[in-house]
Amino acid sequence: MLRVAVAGASGYMGAELLRLLSVHPKVQLTAVTSERLAGERLDRVFPHLRGLSGLTMSELNPSRLADEADVVFLALPHMESQRAVPVLRGQGRKVIDLSADYRLRDATLYGTWYKADHIDAAGLAEAVYGMPELHRKAIASASLVANPGCYPMGAVLATAPLIKSGLGRGEGIVIDGKSGVTGAGAQGRKVEPMYLYTEANENVQAYGIGTHRHTPEIEQELSLVAGAEVRILLTPNLVPMTRGLLATCYARARPNATAEACRDAARSFHEGGLVTVLDGEKLPDTLFVRGSSRAHVAYAKDDRTGFILAMCALDNLARGASAEALQALNVSLGWPDALGLPEVGLFP
Amino acid sequence: MLRVAVAGASGYMGAELLRLLSVHPKVQLTAVTSERLAGERLDRVFPHLRGLSGLTMSELNPSRLADEADVVFLALPHMESQRAVPVLRGQGRKVIDLSADYRLRDATLYGTWYKADHIDAAGLAEAVYGMPELHRKAIASASLVANPGCYPMGAVLATAPLIKSGLGRGEGIVIDGKSGVTGAGAQGRKVEPMYLYTEANENVQAYGIGTHRHTPEIEQELSLVAGAEVRILLTPNLVPMTRGLLATCYARARPNATAEACRDAARSFHEGGLVTVLDGEKLPDTLFVRGSSRAHVAYAKDDRTGFILAMCALDNLARGASAEALQALNVSLGWPDALGLPEVGLFP
Amino acid sequence: MLRVAVAGASGYMGAELLRLLSVHPKVQLTAVTSERLAGERLDRVFPHLRGLSGLTMSELNPSRLADEADVVFLALPHMESQRAVPVLRGQGRKVIDLSADYRLRDATLYGTWYKADHIDAAGLAEAVYGMPELHRKAIASASLVANPGCYPMGAVLATAPLIKSGLGRGEGIVIDGKSGVTGAGAQGRKVEPMYLYTEANENVQAYGIGTHRHTPEIEQELSLVAGAEVRILLTPNLVPMTRGLLATCYARARPNATAEACRDAARSFHEGGLVTVLDGEKLPDTLFVRGSSRAHVAYAKDDRTGFILAMCALDNLARGASAEALQALNVSLGWPDALGLPEVGLFP
Amino acid sequence: MLRVAVAGASGYMGAELLRLLSVHPKVQLTAVTSERLAGERLDRVFPHLRGLSGLTMSELNPSRLADEADVVFLALPHMESQRAVPVLRGQGRKVIDLSADYRLRDATLYGTWYKADHIDAAGLAEAVYGMPELHRKAIASASLVANPGCYPMGAVLATAPLIKSGLGRGEGIVIDGKSGVTGAGAQGRKVEPMYLYTEANENVQAYGIGTHRHTPEIEQELSLVAGAEVRILLTPNLVPMTRGLLATCYARARPNATAEACRDAARSFHEGGLVTVLDGEKLPDTLFVRGSSRAHVAYAKDDRTGFILAMCALDNLARGASAEALQALNVSLGWPDALGLPEVGLFP
Repeated sequence: MLRVAVAGASGYMGAELLRLLSVHPKVQLTAVTSERLAGERLDRVFPHLRGLSGLTMSELNPSRLADEADVVFLALPHMESQRAVPVLRGQGRKVIDLSADYRLRDATLYGTWYKADHIDAAGLAEAVYGMPELHRKAIASASLVANPGCYPMGAVLATAPLIKSGLGRGEGIVIDGKSGVTGAGAQGRKVEPMYLYTEANENVQAYGIGTHRHTPEIEQELSLVAGAEVRILLTPNLVPMTRGLLATCYARARPNATAEACRDAARSFHEGGLVTVLDGEKLPDTLFVRGSSRAHVAYAKDDRTGFILAMCALDNLARGASAEALQALNVSLGWPDALGLPEVGLFP
Repeated sequence: MLRVAVAGASGYMGAELLRLLSVHPKVQLTAVTSERLAGERLDRVFPHLRGLSGLTMSELNPSRLADEADVVFLALPHMESQRAVPVLRGQGRKVIDLSADYRLRDATLYGTWYKADHIDAAGLAEAVYGMPELHRKAIASASLVANPGCYPMGAVLATAPLIKSGLGRGEGIVIDGKSGVTGAGAQGRKVEPMYLYTEANENVQAYGIGTHRHTPEIEQELSLVAGAEVRILLTPNLVPMTRGLLATCYARARPNATAEACRDAARSFHEGGLVTVLDGEKLPDTLFVRGSSRAHVAYAKDDRTGFILAMCALDNLARGASAEALQALNVSLGWPDALGLPEVGLFP
Repeated sequence: MLRVAVAGASGYMGAELLRLLSVHPKVQLTAVTSERLAGERLDRVFPHLRGLSGLTMSELNPSRLADEADVVFLALPHMESQRAVPVLRGQGRKVIDLSADYRLRDATLYGTWYKADHIDAAGLAEAVYGMPELHRKAIASASLVANPGCYPMGAVLATAPLIKSGLGRGEGIVIDGKSGVTGAGAQGRKVEPMYLYTEANENVQAYGIGTHRHTPEIEQELSLVAGAEVRILLTPNLVPMTRGLLATCYARARPNATAEACRDAARSFHEGGLVTVLDGEKLPDTLFVRGSSRAHVAYAKDDRTGFILAMCALDNLARGASAEALQALNVSLGWPDALGLPEVGLFP
Repeated sequence: MLRVAVAGASGYMGAELLRLLSVHPKVQLTAVTSERLAGERLDRVFPHLRGLSGLTMSELNPSRLADEADVVFLALPHMESQRAVPVLRGQGRKVIDLSADYRLRDATLYGTWYKADHIDAAGLAEAVYGMPELHRKAIASASLVANPGCYPMGAVLATAPLIKSGLGRGEGIVIDGKSGVTGAGAQGRKVEPMYLYTEANENVQAYGIGTHRHTPEIEQELSLVAGAEVRILLTPNLVPMTRGLLATCYARARPNATAEACRDAARSFHEGGLVTVLDGEKLPDTLFVRGSSRAHVAYAKDDRTGFILAMCALDNLARGASAEALQALNVSLGWPDALGLPEVGLFP
């Protein structure tokens, strides 16, 4: 059994990692950390684990974690990961980082969007963006995987096939995203009023228009696919549900692009991966991928205005975070992508 | 007191009319109809009216309604309204129609989008689109008001100021709409699986992309404002909430357009009406207009891609249907727009 | 116009008072206070008031409030009210207190359940429990009204007719309460994890069994009705909805009690008030009283076990708090109970 | 691999069986039936299975099913199961029936509560009530397992330890149940207004008080434990969530009963099973068992009124239906109870 640790286990992404790891046939959870809850039993913090785990939360000590585990998942706030990673890598441990710290290859861009200097240039240089659809080979040999954000996961899975095939234009793609509340508060259990039941329920809230930090991440990956600079506009919306993300992407169609051609491009692009291309007129519902490691993508063409709609539905905590991280683990160890991962979601 | 009747009172728009009429100081409800529930007491059908109304549902008999009321609100399925309107108008009654039957000036367009021939050309020729922001004078003298759909209400309130001022371009506007479940089932109490709690909850569902019947209505009104043909793409999404609609509209900016210039244009455009222009960086939440006769609009500019975002939040049953219909009544009788209407919504 | 002030206007009960006061025909809001948000414009704090109020929040200064208003509503945390009340009463102002500070006639009981000594014995001696169903005359002449808690409101409206008529026994009544999230966090905008959307959604949470502070309040009022000591068990449950409270009360039936006899007793008891007794087999739904100043009560008898079920549905923020406070104001000024209050709720 | 079939696969219990079977290591799904959707591909009916199953729905033909599978799960409406069971048993197949048809040992009782005559007396005589906590040995050798209803599952898991230990009295137990919407509509995708999103959301609805068909089932099993007749009152409530059931049971305490003694009794009773006894003051939340095969039980004692509260939280579709059915399968084949079942639920 591979020994794995989860640092930052008290947040929602951490909880989701624990759920998924509990049924993975080839790994064993050996350590969990939380600054806030160090010293507490894991099954006190998370009653859904009552009687199912004897572990106790400890403070984050990267060196000790390196002794306790072969692979370390970091579900920490950004800036925290880059403090732990050099130690873990220095002791030869493989790291899968769920924070934003290693996603942007360009440290300047990190400074611009995260308002802070990156302190681990060496790590940044070797980190691989953890989307097997784009970087399968690099993930297989990486010592540090930067797990994508949930909006980038949705937006890139939907639009990369269009860009790669040339059916859609890269400039000025509009991405209207709808996310459940865990998407916005996944790093911790945030307690701002907008996340209260009373203020998130029966509400759709637009936020962070044009300034969301997932913007450069999407542009970076789509530009790599295009071989040219891609500019996008990301509009995130908080919708009243716990999990789920729908990325609705509007791209200008190239001549002769049809919905079916887009589906064909997506089927090729996603062959062998954990993405289902919906056919016919079926559109994606987030409920159909809840709790699942799979994403659903679908395409429509509006002849009246010339737009292609590329849509992706996924569970922001599962496929958009923790299941994605386990998929990267599977890929990096040469295991099947879906090993131990739930492909059938919780419906209804 | 003005005597008013509500035909089609058993649906959600009908229920909302009853709520609003119950506190209007100058009207008295004298008749209610429902084919399905004729003969039943209104307060049996709607327990929230228990003890508050002695009326009984009757079958729709336009001629009898014309005797019982001075003004008739029709909250009927489309195709039903156009059967009742000629009779009501023939007997000199003012009609406010909440269906889609009289919204499109061009009967051909009606045929194309509603797959049926319009049977009341005379009514269509005299109907006025019930948006006081665009047709205040015509409403004041109209005998037949065609109440706008909820998406058109949101989309036009947000984008008309851009078109009129020239700050945004009319061609290829993308409207990504998010609606609560009553928006999709407002005419009745529809019982398709997608409206079940179990399948709408924890779900975002895209539907009717590029084919939604509100499309020609939006284009008709924006084209009038522009003095040129406007083409739009409407993407409706069903989100898990009962009421509320957020229209997120993406228009190409003309040079020098700024968010603040858009707000100024909207402030002029909406002066004196029931629309609040949010200032600064505040974005609209649907929760802040729940149950209210007011809509909130807001603007952002993305310099990186050149898009203006024009957003409108409203309650699809109140401002997007029944309160709008009462506002039209107020305008047509020379009363203040907000007379008897709730401007402060139910928060939270 | 009567000048009224709201102290503690930044919480949900405060917001609900503002909504209701905005349409009351005989009052004018002249001052609002909030320690946390002093200096901010009311319509910045609550976007649903944008453009509808020019007031600014101030710090709580009871003496100044007494100058600014004829009647003061206190929507403060408990212990805060008893500091302000003596000053306001000293300056001749009528006070309607929505906190728990003046609900228990016995200061010792206050100490036991609230773990603090009461500091205004004089106020306590003169306060009237603000339930017109039980204390109409006393409210009419009171200078200080203690507005009931939401569970007591529901439990007493349902069970007092049984106790008074002798159809049900007072000892050992079980009250299983189900409340929306604003019920638990109504004083402020609490930010404990159990109130987060992510942890309240898709969840039913039992809390405070046998220890809830509404217990002695219910016992006090039912004991007064019974003329003997009544003991109850209150089990509160948090359910995933914003507003609404269902109190399901189980009382042992006396011989010959029937559901219909209970309804008759309730019809007499509630005659002329703002309570609807549902007849036949209809059971109460919280949705049918959302936003309303009315409560619905219903009765069933289980012959197999000998229990009477007395149920009450109300909106915890409206009938269970702020509308109740306005009803008390109406009663105390000799106005009709329902003056300016919404009797038809927001459905759906 | 054991070949299994699911009859009635188009309802929610069927869907949940499919989810659970998809990861069970020792079974293979070989056939699915649905009268309504015969001829359709399973992954068209349930988009969450897209690309994950090549099966097609067929009409229910018990004889053919007996050829296709070793074990048949019946997720049919009641009265349908008793038509299929004799054929399946006649061909030597093991049947696990999720309907109510074989739960009541007394056919007269079936007639009284289900208003129909039972047509398979032979089956009824041999059926075993599928709760391993009570009938483990009988299940191991049964050819026909009657899977418990969701309320009985919750109520019996919580109260049986009290009855068995004598800490609580059996007469007049009140069971106040709160269920998500799938609990009420689990057999199919019911389309009555009370199950619409618009009418179930933001609502708590009491229904079927004293008349719910789970009543005799609970009484039958508790009477067996007590060795005497037990009478209960069941009050079901529909709460706005998709999954989850909280059974709050009020039993009269025998002298010296304490909460801790109840917990001890429950720990003994549930040893080795899939029930977690919460300790200390922790109360059960339904969210902590969502999607899980485990139930949580907890106890409190109210010294003021002499009641014991016994509570059980479970997922009505998982532990309260389909996971329970798989646990019965595991027990009947001598496999570990939890084999292939998710013990860690989906949180949040």
